[in-house]
Amino acid sequence: MSIILGIDPGSRLTGYGVIKQNGRNFTYLGSGCIKAIAAGDDFSARLQTIFAGVSELIVQFQPDMFAIEQVFMGVNPGGALKLGQARGAAIVAATNTGLSVAEYSARQIKQSVVGTGAADKAQVQHMVKTILQLPGTPQADAADALAVALCHAHSHDSITKLSGQASKTVRGRLR
Amino acid sequence: MSIILGIDPGSRLTGYGVIKQNGRNFTYLGSGCIKAIAAGDDFSARLQTIFAGVSELIVQFQPDMFAIEQVFMGVNPGGALKLGQARGAAIVAATNTGLSVAEYSARQIKQSVVGTGAADKAQVQHMVKTILQLPGTPQADAADALAVALCHAHSHDSITKLSGQASKTVRGRLR
Repeated sequence: MSIILGIDPGSRLTGYGVIKQNGRNFTYLGSGCIKAIAAGDDFSARLQTIFAGVSELIVQFQPDMFAIEQVFMGVNPGGALKLGQARGAAIVAATNTGLSVAEYSARQIKQSVVGTGAADKAQVQHMVKTILQLPGTPQADAADALAVALCHAHSHDSITKLSGQASKTVRGRLR
Repeated sequence: MSIILGIDPGSRLTGYGVIKQNGRNFTYLGSGCIKAIAAGDDFSARLQTIFAGVSELIVQFQPDMFAIEQVFMGVNPGGALKLGQARGAAIVAATNTGLSVAEYSARQIKQSVVGTGAADKAQVQHMVKTILQLPGTPQADAADALAVALCHAHSHDSITKLSGQASKTVRGRLR
């Protein structure tokens, strides 16, 4: 049994999703969005909102695993810098509590959850809703974060099966 | 009297410099380099090294002010993303203790410390050594971080004089 916290980082909105994995069974524990944008134009206050928000989620849900979406590289250096800072704030909230960090590309996540790396947002939302048997469709950022957590669960599960041990995942580690 | 922690962020090496400001008098308190590269290829471990290192400096020196160098935007998106993550880790170490964050461009820092925005690294090292009456020339990353702290001290001092209050700086705030 593992609790997985998935994060979809952003300098304005950071999605989160928490699931419990028991073999091939997944239970939805929570999801939502950390609104860094609410801190206004002070970028350091936004980073603090992300750091404090992720830290709070870790206290609340006590995850065993932390997975985060890789960010799209095709943006300009200024955008990459902002996104990198948001991502750094989310990651150290995890590492600071001793959690190890797994990282997956958008393509890996879609492949794992929808079955094709080219899936669109609506397909991801639909599959997340179906797999977790949710009563309604989660909002896009939350759905992406839940998809990160599911992707990690699938990856973790397949590695566990391959190695015959219920131990740590090495693949997908952030580099 | 203020204690200022200056940071020159990097995903491999993060320079730090600590000075005490008393009006126009500056005292050197410490400087050096956080070697994130020592954590190896695991990038999340590097971010944790930066976060833990800056947090430790704050406990050790109890700064009233935190200033950080803006990073060069001319790098590729991948480089900007790495640098952004390192910077985010350093910034939340400060905001998490309630410190506000001031940000200066390399040009502002050189202008403030050397008198020209086009100064080279050796000139910055020389002026930092002279202003702080150091017995030897500080290593480049440490000198850059001390220069950030001196730049903030100058900026803070001129704002204080202009406004006639010994209160918070607003200019140079990270956005």
